[in-house]
Amino acid sequence: MHSVKELTEKFSQHFVKHQFTNKPASLYEPLNYFLANSGKRIRPVLCLMGNELFDDITDNAYHAAMAVEYFHNFSLIHDDIMDAASLRRGLETVHIKYGTNTALLSGDVLLIYCYEHINKISNNYLPRILHLFNKTAREVCEGQQADMDFEKHENVLLEDYIEMISLKTSVLLAASLEMGAILGGASEGNCRHIYEFGKNLGIAFQIQDDYLDAFGNPEKFGKEVGGDIKQNKKTFLWLHVLETANAGQKQELLNLIKDNPADKVEKVLKIYKDCNVDAWANELKEKYFQIALKHLHDIAVVSSRKKPLLELAEFLIQRDY
Amino acid sequence: MHSVKELTEKFSQHFVKHQFTNKPASLYEPLNYFLANSGKRIRPVLCLMGNELFDDITDNAYHAAMAVEYFHNFSLIHDDIMDAASLRRGLETVHIKYGTNTALLSGDVLLIYCYEHINKISNNYLPRILHLFNKTAREVCEGQQADMDFEKHENVLLEDYIEMISLKTSVLLAASLEMGAILGGASEGNCRHIYEFGKNLGIAFQIQDDYLDAFGNPEKFGKEVGGDIKQNKKTFLWLHVLETANAGQKQELLNLIKDNPADKVEKVLKIYKDCNVDAWANELKEKYFQIALKHLHDIAVVSSRKKPLLELAEFLIQRDY
Repeated sequence: MHSVKELTEKFSQHFVKHQFTNKPASLYEPLNYFLANSGKRIRPVLCLMGNELFDDITDNAYHAAMAVEYFHNFSLIHDDIMDAASLRRGLETVHIKYGTNTALLSGDVLLIYCYEHINKISNNYLPRILHLFNKTAREVCEGQQADMDFEKHENVLLEDYIEMISLKTSVLLAASLEMGAILGGASEGNCRHIYEFGKNLGIAFQIQDDYLDAFGNPEKFGKEVGGDIKQNKKTFLWLHVLETANAGQKQELLNLIKDNPADKVEKVLKIYKDCNVDAWANELKEKYFQIALKHLHDIAVVSSRKKPLLELAEFLIQRDY
Repeated sequence: MHSVKELTEKFSQHFVKHQFTNKPASLYEPLNYFLANSGKRIRPVLCLMGNELFDDITDNAYHAAMAVEYFHNFSLIHDDIMDAASLRRGLETVHIKYGTNTALLSGDVLLIYCYEHINKISNNYLPRILHLFNKTAREVCEGQQADMDFEKHENVLLEDYIEMISLKTSVLLAASLEMGAILGGASEGNCRHIYEFGKNLGIAFQIQDDYLDAFGNPEKFGKEVGGDIKQNKKTFLWLHVLETANAGQKQELLNLIKDNPADKVEKVLKIYKDCNVDAWANELKEKYFQIALKHLHDIAVVSSRKKPLLELAEFLIQRDY
C-alpha cells in the first residue's frame, strides 16, 4: 500500500510524460501551460487509491487517472471562461493569456483527449468505465449550469444547493475512486460504497470550505477570510441564514449585499453567529463525513487496506479550529 | 440498398426519438432547439451508407450515426461562438439566443453525449470506433484552430490551406463513412478506401463551394454571389490569385480589401478571371473528385452496391455551370 504522498509522486511522474507535442502549437501550447500548474492531482490519486484498495495498481488505473485529471482541467478552463476569472492558482487563466476562442477550443480538445486515455483501458473494462465517465462528465456540466442558474435566483433551497454542489464537485471525486475500484476488480456492492464514500466526503469538504471562508483562522486557512461574503456568493451558510434569520436580520442581510458597505463582512458574520450558522455548518459537515466513513467501513476488504483512504479523509476534513 | 433520400428519412425518424428531457432544462433546451433545425444530416447518412455498402444496416451503425451528427452540431455551436455568428440556417445561433456561457456548456454536454452513443456499440467494435472517433474529433478542433490562425496571417500556402480544410470539414465525412464500414465488417483495405473517398470528395466539395460563391449562377446557387469576397474571406480562389497575380494585380487586390469600395466584388472577380482562377479551381476540384472516385472504384465489393455512393458523389459535385 502506498501513501497519498507516494501516489501523488507516482502519478506526477506518469503525468509529465504526456506533454502535448501536436500541431497546431497554438491549440496545444495553452494546455501544456495550464496542465503544468495543475494543483494537487487529487482526483487521479483517488483513482489510484480506489484501485489499490482491491489490488496492486494496474496500467488501466493510470489510464483512468489521466482521464479524470484531464477532465478536471478541461472543466476548469471552460469554467474560468464562464466565470470571467482572470487568475487560477496564482497564474493567468487560459482565456486571459491566450484568448477566449483558443481557451474554448483547447478545452474541447482536452475533453477529447480524456477519451483517448479511456480507450487504452482493457476491452473487458472499457464499456463500464466509459459509461461511468460519461455519466459523471454530464453531471459536472449539469452542476455548472445549475450553479449559473442559481446565481440569478434570490431564493435557492438548501436541498437544491447540495444537489448542485454534489454534481459540480463531488461526483467526479466519487467516480475517480469507483473507476479505480472497478479496474481493481471490485464487486458492485464495493463499487457503490466507495462511490458514496467519495461523494459524501466531497460534500463535507465543500461545507467545510464555505465554513472556513467565513470562520477560519486566516493563518491556518491560507487565504483572506470573508471572500465569499465580499463577492455575495451563494454558499451553504448564506442559504441557511436566509432560512433561519428573523425578518429584521433578513432585511439587514439583503441591504448589506445591496449597499455593499465597508464593514459588510463583519456585519454578515455577526448575523451568521447570532443565528448559530457556524455550529449548524459544523454539524452538517459532520453528518456527511459520518455517512462517508460508514460507506468506507462497509467496503468488504480488510481494514488495513483502507488506511490510506481513512487518513486522506481525516486530513481533508479538519477539526482543529 | 437504400437511396440517400430513404436513409435520410430513416435516420430522421431515429433521431427525433432522442430529444433531451434531462435537467436542468436551461442546459438541454438549447440543444433541442438547435438539433431540431439541423440541416441535411449528411454525416449520419454517410455512416449508414458506409455500413450498407458491406451489410444490412445494423443498430451499431445507428449509434455511430448519432455520434457523428451530435459531434457535427457540437462543433457548430462552439464555432458559432468563436466566429461571433448570429445566424445559422436562418435561425438565431445558440449563444445569441441563450447566452455564450450556456452555449459553451450545452456544446460540452453534447460532445459528452456523442460518447454515450458510441458506448452503445457492441464491445467487439468499440475500441476501434472510439479510436477513429477521437482522432477525427481532435483533427476537427485542430482544423478550426488552424483556420483561426490563418485569418491573422497575410500569406497562407495553398497546401496548408488544403490541409486545414481537410481537417476542419473532410475528415468527419470520411470518418462517418469509415465507421459505417467498420461496423459492416469491412476489411482494413476497404476501410482505407472509403475513408479516402470521403476525404477527397469533401475537399472537392469545398473547392466547389468557394468557386460557386464567386462564379455560381445566383439562381441555382441559392445565395448571393461574392459573399466571401465581401467578407475578405480566405478561400482557395483568394490564395491562388495571390500566388499567380502579377505585381500590379496583387497590389490592386490588397488595396481592394483595405479600402473596401462599393464595387469590390466586381473588381476582384475581374482579376480572378484575368488570372484564370475559375478554370484553375475547376481543375483542382476535378482532381480531388477523380481521386475520390478512384478510391470508390477500388473498394472490393460489387459495383451495384456502390451505386448510392456514386450517385451521392455526382449529386454533390455538380457540373452544370
